[in-house]
Amino acid sequence: MPKISEKGKRMPASPIRKLVPYAEAAKKKGTNVIHLNIGQPDIKTPKIALDAVRNHDIEVLAYSMTEGSEEYRTKIAEYYAKNDINVSSDDIIVTTGGSEALSFTMGSIMDGNDEIIIPEPFYANYNGFATALGVKVVPIVSTIENNFALPPIADFERLITAKTRAILICNPGNPTGYLYSKDEIQQLAALVKKHNLFLVADEVYREFTYDGREHCSILQEAGLEEHAIVVDSVSKRYSMCGARIGCLVSKNKKVVQTALKFAQARLSPPTFAQIASEAALDTPQEYFDAVIKEYVERRNILVSELQKLDGVRVAIPQGAFYCVAELPVDDSDDFAQWLLEKFEMDGNTVMVAPAAGFYATQGLGKNQIRIAYVLEKDLLIKAVHILGEALKLYNAS
Amino acid sequence: MPKISEKGKRMPASPIRKLVPYAEAAKKKGTNVIHLNIGQPDIKTPKIALDAVRNHDIEVLAYSMTEGSEEYRTKIAEYYAKNDINVSSDDIIVTTGGSEALSFTMGSIMDGNDEIIIPEPFYANYNGFATALGVKVVPIVSTIENNFALPPIADFERLITAKTRAILICNPGNPTGYLYSKDEIQQLAALVKKHNLFLVADEVYREFTYDGREHCSILQEAGLEEHAIVVDSVSKRYSMCGARIGCLVSKNKKVVQTALKFAQARLSPPTFAQIASEAALDTPQEYFDAVIKEYVERRNILVSELQKLDGVRVAIPQGAFYCVAELPVDDSDDFAQWLLEKFEMDGNTVMVAPAAGFYATQGLGKNQIRIAYVLEKDLLIKAVHILGEALKLYNAS
Repeated sequence: MPKISEKGKRMPASPIRKLVPYAEAAKKKGTNVIHLNIGQPDIKTPKIALDAVRNHDIEVLAYSMTEGSEEYRTKIAEYYAKNDINVSSDDIIVTTGGSEALSFTMGSIMDGNDEIIIPEPFYANYNGFATALGVKVVPIVSTIENNFALPPIADFERLITAKTRAILICNPGNPTGYLYSKDEIQQLAALVKKHNLFLVADEVYREFTYDGREHCSILQEAGLEEHAIVVDSVSKRYSMCGARIGCLVSKNKKVVQTALKFAQARLSPPTFAQIASEAALDTPQEYFDAVIKEYVERRNILVSELQKLDGVRVAIPQGAFYCVAELPVDDSDDFAQWLLEKFEMDGNTVMVAPAAGFYATQGLGKNQIRIAYVLEKDLLIKAVHILGEALKLYNAS
Repeated sequence: MPKISEKGKRMPASPIRKLVPYAEAAKKKGTNVIHLNIGQPDIKTPKIALDAVRNHDIEVLAYSMTEGSEEYRTKIAEYYAKNDINVSSDDIIVTTGGSEALSFTMGSIMDGNDEIIIPEPFYANYNGFATALGVKVVPIVSTIENNFALPPIADFERLITAKTRAILICNPGNPTGYLYSKDEIQQLAALVKKHNLFLVADEVYREFTYDGREHCSILQEAGLEEHAIVVDSVSKRYSMCGARIGCLVSKNKKVVQTALKFAQARLSPPTFAQIASEAALDTPQEYFDAVIKEYVERRNILVSELQKLDGVRVAIPQGAFYCVAELPVDDSDDFAQWLLEKFEMDGNTVMVAPAAGFYATQGLGKNQIRIAYVLEKDLLIKAVHILGEALKLYNAS
């Protein structure tokens, strides 16, 4: 039998994937599984976006432009202008999800065995794209004690080698919910300029910032034009994860020209999804105001409920809709499986994402979980209550 | 300024991309450019597919399953059964276009510097995916004299090294229009079994076979289960290139499990496009009968018109909707540019795809072009007439 690739063997499986059969078995037994593990918002997609697709008048569903239509990219540039980000349509390539934007970025700036430094815990799929492209993720630890703030710049500098090509941040962060301050962004900007690196920022949660704090984009930094590459997506912004539309944004012409060659190989991003995404740009501000109000209330409830539990420590998210919690368990993988396999309370249990899958350093995050607060408040309260009772029983046995 | 990757520099630009500014300039001058260069069919997308999207009742455009929904994959398996291909829904991963299926395939079976043998001329983007993944395309020449039939198996064997992982064919072929015979498929099957390689077939043009000839899929070969991987797409089948839906099909469980990990990293294929693609499977046979009748007529006219031109040789396509023609010119890149930049006849000119971009071997195909017969018959006749007059003038000057 011919062999699969070494790279294929190394490709990380989703941190949740191995729990899925246990969740299915629990459901089959009649247990109601409350999902705290999923980053799929329950928020409705703006009607304007869904209607645009309903009203399409396409007769031949043809390839779109490789980089996305001029019209759509112009509207994206206007969206950025409203967010104090000054870019033109030429600085934008429309991609199939933020995923593809990141993949094109890594391909355009990194060769085999080149290194990219990423604060951990980080979005697990960064590792997947790096493995697929044969490049190396160098993790730098951020800690729950510090609310997952930027690690000291001296720690970054110690990790920079001749192979280092870029630093990647997610701002606000998945899974941490941490929102980098202007000062932190400027520290990173100075660092990448000093060492002639790229700074890549996944800013897909840009709108979701709380407590009156503002999002600072790396594209707002003067003098960072040749270094900054932003990965963006409509998935969370408009609760349209199934569209699969994102974009890569950079003022560095060579980066955009190179990424365009990767884009040409896959021809074009999906047409229907571009129609929805272009229409979504006309979503009224009230939509976001309501969504953000909802997320803030959920976060407040989730955090205060978690803080009531013995031995649980929680980082306070200032953005996105995730938080990382430390539990009084040795191995949250085992605990998450036990929740699905062995536990139920009045016919309910919860599914959580073990955090070890968000760390590249072996052994880190083993007592942490990620919770996505994409459920309604009553359900969040119920879920945390169940979690608390489960922890008591788990630690008693 | 930080540097782009070596890989990024090597990424091939589209063979047509450098002609685009000349085409735009010609149009600006008021010249009508007839496009023989594009693989975008003018055929209408089945209404059933477009209506399914018009009638969607989605409220939250959520992620779909990474591998595509069970329902859609089951229907795809039924489609294959009708084509005498026996696979189950578990053997299928729905992808974002055939492009992604090929990329997942290469990633799942090849590591850096591994080799894949591909008969040339071949679909130019194969080179793009190989470059992006750092793997090596080893071309094997097929010739216009032989109508681009399979090269002798002994020629393949000479190219097999310890690094060879797979052979890739496109059947029927883009850009050649060649349809591999049962005997040729069986020769390849024996070869990959003997050398323990994968056989990858891009079968996206499966439906488009002419002159009563039947398509032979590698998935129909008994004993090839562990070796065969099919790349498929709805793009050409239903004239819905803008959907960006394809699939990877293999009975080799390890291949499917590995490709699924690559798929998980990008979360899911586009939802609207899956709705259209699932509905498209109910397209009545009359649609295909009419389309194939149209393509056969176009092919016949195109070939007979081309054969009337002095010094032009043309391979007879038995499938797909492309043909490769040899012209009495030294460099079809220069000629194609000249057609756009310097030539017009009664306000018209033609744009062709220079064939050198479909060869990996430097210097091959320089006097060849690819013509896509995705235009109406009258326009094809007119285009070939213009081409003939242009050749006379080009060679006289």
